Amino acid sequence: MRLSAVGEFGLINRIKQNTINDHSTVRCGIGDDAAVLKPTGNMLQLATTDMLVQDVHFSLATIGPWQLGYKALAVNISDIAAMGGLPRHALISVALPRAVSVAFVEQLYAGLKAIAAKYALNIVGGDTVSSPVGIVINVTVLGEAEQDRVIYRSGAREGDWLVVSGTLGDSAGGLHILREQLDFAGGEPLVQAHLLPEPQVELGRLCARYQVHALNDISDGLASELHEICAASGCGAVIYQDRLPLSRELGTLAAFTGQAAADYALYGGEDYQLLFTARPETVQRMLQDNPKIKLTEVGE
Amino acid sequence: MRLSAVGEFGLINRIKQNTINDHSTVRCGIGDDAAVLKPTGNMLQLATTDMLVQDVHFSLATIGPWQLGYKALAVNISDIAAMGGLPRHALISVALPRAVSVAFVEQLYAGLKAIAAKYALNIVGGDTVSSPVGIVINVTVLGEAEQDRVIYRSGAREGDWLVVSGTLGDSAGGLHILREQLDFAGGEPLVQAHLLPEPQVELGRLCARYQVHALNDISDGLASELHEICAASGCGAVIYQDRLPLSRELGTLAAFTGQAAADYALYGGEDYQLLFTARPETVQRMLQDNPKIKLTEVGE
Repeated sequence: MRLSAVGEFGLINRIKQNTINDHSTVRCGIGDDAAVLKPTGNMLQLATTDMLVQDVHFSLATIGPWQLGYKALAVNISDIAAMGGLPRHALISVALPRAVSVAFVEQLYAGLKAIAAKYALNIVGGDTVSSPVGIVINVTVLGEAEQDRVIYRSGAREGDWLVVSGTLGDSAGGLHILREQLDFAGGEPLVQAHLLPEPQVELGRLCARYQVHALNDISDGLASELHEICAASGCGAVIYQDRLPLSRELGTLAAFTGQAAADYALYGGEDYQLLFTARPETVQRMLQDNPKIKLTEVGE
Repeated sequence: MRLSAVGEFGLINRIKQNTINDHSTVRCGIGDDAAVLKPTGNMLQLATTDMLVQDVHFSLATIGPWQLGYKALAVNISDIAAMGGLPRHALISVALPRAVSVAFVEQLYAGLKAIAAKYALNIVGGDTVSSPVGIVINVTVLGEAEQDRVIYRSGAREGDWLVVSGTLGDSAGGLHILREQLDFAGGEPLVQAHLLPEPQVELGRLCARYQVHALNDISDGLASELHEICAASGCGAVIYQDRLPLSRELGTLAAFTGQAAADYALYGGEDYQLLFTARPETVQRMLQDNPKIKLTEVGE
């Protein structure tokens, strides 16, 4: 069935189902002129927005609608995590060519709703419009953080360690596999890292609790994110290339493609891991208290 | 100068200027992973979003960049007004073809900033991306309203009067003039109403203060908005066509085009006036206390 057969109101009725995961914070979700939300007393509000344009930010040759929905929300949740906050609500606008099938749109929203449910986020508003060419998705995520616990990118200090979470470059490796249709066995975790990035909300909250100094999510590659922190904080930094946390799979891919694994990590982007700076003793305390998290000191 | 010569960061630096009109509510605006905002204690939060796509929602043949920016924000402010709220912050995403000139983008943001300043709104975030074809603008507006003073569209009651503000159909008339390039003298107020609609924030606040029962902004024509209120409130309504508030200019245009003036008002849309229902004595009190506002009882 084509979208044009259902119409905007039919589509909205399908979208409205299962959008509220935390009823205590929503007085009114989709369906009126604006959503009506109940903020938590004494918290600061966080807000971020990202626009994804077909054939600029994604290609339907390499990503399916469910994954596209999941990822569109994931990257915005990641921005909230990168402030040390908790994501609460999302507003989602989608421009769709009339030839798009209803099944495609339902899969797109299924992916959006899956990650919303995972992070107890409410989808409280949005817009569905038609597009002459290509899909456009705009997501706004609202979050909350305790007063004086928000972590900016401008707080880095002399003597801080530079720390990253997880492994870096996997997403760039996965994109390489997808784009070039590489005949490479064992690349599935890399492809997954690219298609379904996991925002580091829990770690972001930990960073807020331990009062790290500066925090960014790694959306544009470690080099670029570090540059942003340095520029905002007015300081320099050094990365030890041999300390970059690289997955075994990325190493194997690098050997296969002949590209340096570190290049994927430094310049690839879309990892959505966190990069932060903190006093060495803070990092050590974080690791001692939380033995399950994976942090790597990559520089100072 | 083409946009491609300035780059995304050059563009963001130009955009960032003069975006904060109320510093007391913004801890961090454009420039970090997310905006950090200070909500007013005890208020509910409102959130709305709208996506405008070139050649679907607007044509550059009939609207300039300054007006486009002004209008894109105006229609979202109107959604906040339609809940009885105060607009506070905006996040603005824009997808632009690379061939767009820097002057065009500056005019677009000048229009956005002009209306933001007028309503003491802060532009606290956004995204600027490239587009393969055509401009896409997504605006999210955040607002606030007192607890238990938010006005939904579902509150209409038996015996309420149906009231509209201003005059209706002017915007549709203006669009008709622009689209058909009508050689019609005296149509300038209609064209203005279409290009630069004024959101009814003050009146929305008044509606909240006087506790009207149901409230909508008239974005899709009176008939459609009334249908939404009736459907949400579970009641019927009657409009007296001879009571529709029509401007003199629209009357003259209707005589010129041969189209019924009431049709512009009922089905035209984009007036961004308010439609509300309230007890007759409430309406009379509103008018007595505020002699300057223009309200018309169009039905019940």
